[in-house]
Amino acid sequence: MDLVEGGYKGLALEILKNFGIDVWSEVKLKTQETEFVGIVLPRSQKGDDRHIVLKLRNGYNVGIKVDKILSIELLGQKETKPTTNFRERLHDPRKPTVKLNSTGGTIASRLDYRTGAVVPAFEPEELYEFIPEITNFCNLHTEKLYSVLSEDIGPKEWIGIANAVARDIEAGYHGIVIAHGTDTMHFTSSLLSFMIQNPPIPIVMVGSQRSSDRPASDAPLNLIYSVKTASESDIAEVTVCAVGPVSDSYGLLHRGTRVRKMHSSHRSTFRTIGDIPLALVSKEKITPLRKDYNRRRKDRAFNAKITFEEKVALIYHYPNMKPDVIEALIDNGYKGIVIAGSGLGHVNNQLYPALKKAHEKGIFILMTVQTLWGYVQMYVYETGREIMSLGVVPAENMLPETAYMKLCWTLGQTTNPEQVKEIMLTPIAGEITEREPTNAYLIFQGGIPEIEEFISKLRM
Amino acid sequence: MDLVEGGYKGLALEILKNFGIDVWSEVKLKTQETEFVGIVLPRSQKGDDRHIVLKLRNGYNVGIKVDKILSIELLGQKETKPTTNFRERLHDPRKPTVKLNSTGGTIASRLDYRTGAVVPAFEPEELYEFIPEITNFCNLHTEKLYSVLSEDIGPKEWIGIANAVARDIEAGYHGIVIAHGTDTMHFTSSLLSFMIQNPPIPIVMVGSQRSSDRPASDAPLNLIYSVKTASESDIAEVTVCAVGPVSDSYGLLHRGTRVRKMHSSHRSTFRTIGDIPLALVSKEKITPLRKDYNRRRKDRAFNAKITFEEKVALIYHYPNMKPDVIEALIDNGYKGIVIAGSGLGHVNNQLYPALKKAHEKGIFILMTVQTLWGYVQMYVYETGREIMSLGVVPAENMLPETAYMKLCWTLGQTTNPEQVKEIMLTPIAGEITEREPTNAYLIFQGGIPEIEEFISKLRM
Repeated sequence: MDLVEGGYKGLALEILKNFGIDVWSEVKLKTQETEFVGIVLPRSQKGDDRHIVLKLRNGYNVGIKVDKILSIELLGQKETKPTTNFRERLHDPRKPTVKLNSTGGTIASRLDYRTGAVVPAFEPEELYEFIPEITNFCNLHTEKLYSVLSEDIGPKEWIGIANAVARDIEAGYHGIVIAHGTDTMHFTSSLLSFMIQNPPIPIVMVGSQRSSDRPASDAPLNLIYSVKTASESDIAEVTVCAVGPVSDSYGLLHRGTRVRKMHSSHRSTFRTIGDIPLALVSKEKITPLRKDYNRRRKDRAFNAKITFEEKVALIYHYPNMKPDVIEALIDNGYKGIVIAGSGLGHVNNQLYPALKKAHEKGIFILMTVQTLWGYVQMYVYETGREIMSLGVVPAENMLPETAYMKLCWTLGQTTNPEQVKEIMLTPIAGEITEREPTNAYLIFQGGIPEIEEFISKLRM
Repeated sequence: MDLVEGGYKGLALEILKNFGIDVWSEVKLKTQETEFVGIVLPRSQKGDDRHIVLKLRNGYNVGIKVDKILSIELLGQKETKPTTNFRERLHDPRKPTVKLNSTGGTIASRLDYRTGAVVPAFEPEELYEFIPEITNFCNLHTEKLYSVLSEDIGPKEWIGIANAVARDIEAGYHGIVIAHGTDTMHFTSSLLSFMIQNPPIPIVMVGSQRSSDRPASDAPLNLIYSVKTASESDIAEVTVCAVGPVSDSYGLLHRGTRVRKMHSSHRSTFRTIGDIPLALVSKEKITPLRKDYNRRRKDRAFNAKITFEEKVALIYHYPNMKPDVIEALIDNGYKGIVIAGSGLGHVNNQLYPALKKAHEKGIFILMTVQTLWGYVQMYVYETGREIMSLGVVPAENMLPETAYMKLCWTLGQTTNPEQVKEIMLTPIAGEITEREPTNAYLIFQGGIPEIEEFISKLRM
């Protein structure tokens, strides 16, 4: 691939030509401040002419401003240049075959240099250009299911994703990776955990906080960790995989029903809430942090229940919230309400008559906690008992977002209140746990000695 | 005070009599497993007859089952028995005088043994019975402002609390402590930060997760730390004070606008979000963790703006949220909406027409992030730009709950959109910060070496 085909132009093109460097070459690049060793990556069509992008040995991409560059030394041409067409690659029968389904999101986006905004634009084949390592683990088949940003995802896509997963399990794939926007990934991972129960293979969701074509994107590492997990892990659950908080040298694997996006821009945005993550993932190995997970099986059996009811609302309570908020849901024909209550599962007493009315109209009302960590406990205070007497059902330690998705899913099957209650309170995929370990509360940051030891062993 | 007056009865009374022990005596109590040294506390009228309650030297109360007790040895009668009437106490002119205003909540509650639920019932004077240490720091004046659980708190109480604080500052108190339910304490601390600006003295909010009459209550330590802070600290801001996460040997002082209740039952429920706490507090000393705080002054000047508008809603966005939720707020005459958006401040595109309509009707719409950590950044994605073009105003890194209270407060002053926007986006009390330190993201757990060092120095 020549430099122009590789997307370079202007000043950047000139400098590469001056030093006799082609894309995909391994180089040592010196700037005034430091030096980098890495592979010259092609740029996207819309890239500027003022940066050269290197893939460093640690897996990161870095964009270096041309006016900082002192010299570029050729270390060696890459032996096998990646091709842009994955179909031309040879299938390696010794490796597992993994399916990557893209639904959109930042990981499948590019920076639009005209506006400076990130816009969706993704061809899964392009992954090979940017992250050749993923073929180390497996034969990768890719498919673009959707191209939406995840704030806009809804029942059509959720049902489509679940059907695609069911189809791909039946097709015999060794694991499935689903690329998805991070904004609402934890909603989709929860719903998928209920729609596809007891899967025989890993179903790993992945996204990124910065688009793949940007320097210092988290997309390459997240993809490497998630493809490795789908290829090699024994954990046959719906999970979310992303870089860990302390170091880029590992990723964390989160159970799909116990994960939440906790930072708007930090690369390590996903956190397991009220529990410890399922595993640490590095390029070298996958280290389970616990034993209570669904194991990979050779069979293709699983339980698909792809149902959905749209008329469900999620409400975070606040002091002085007025009953008109609840009454509007009654008037608009809602069938379910999940409340993220204050404290142990409380709402203010102005709301009691509206909740009573909602219950009498057959709306199923579930109580969770907006503290995110901890259990609903409605027997502790008189308030909680009164709210239960209005017909509100406490949901143990189900996260509010998980409870919202589970109620949409459950009400798609039945509106019989006793049946709804039984389904909602019977754990299917870890959404309710018997206890929350003490080191699972705002703690699992790698600050725990045993975990630090794990991590240090993972480092090369 | 004799044993029966002290609330003991049945088996517990019998055992104390057998060993010749009176309430307020210091004793060594042996059980099959261990031994305790502490002071025999009186029980509440509704206490059971199967426990003897000791106040240990570390400040904790512990209830010991009578059938476990092997022996009780008298170590010494307390010289000055606390009296239940604080007005009889001598005023010590060498000590600062602090005001404790109670509004209710668990810290001011007792367990109702008939139902097993916690019910509000509080006389501030009773504090002296349970926590004699608080008189070490100051002369304490107490007042019961309200007796409500904090989920039911509203404008009447908020305005009443602010007026009481203004009055108490003017009265010359050295510091103010406000006892409040934990469920919504962070809402009240935010609002109070806007209503009482640039105070000359510490205004410390305090609550507890377990009522004061229960064994292992966090009320004593929280009260000791908050009274010490009000008496001695240089930090003249509205703060929340509570035990720290790692050890009972210190408390954390959180800025009122940057704190959120993050666990439904854990004693260390309050956490500073997107920043590090203001200070570590032990019985021995107060250690500021930063320098950028409002200092204590001798003058009595402050800026009181006690305004409030009730027609404000707080909405956490979820995927597939329907426009009827927004339309109901328009129809019901709301004047402000705070959205806790997905990701960097996004909502799904079904909501756009309703948001546009709301904006056109003069409703002020503010965007925050439901990730809690990180900033709203609506220029990054096309989605964000479109939502801003509908009239939605990004609120930097203001917490959703803080933004709700600030918008209620601001709309009480003006409904002119330009003025509202200016007030909302001008930081008053740390509700918007220029950056969030990296060790402020789900990290400040005492796992940081410098903090660990601080803490170890605090330990006796």
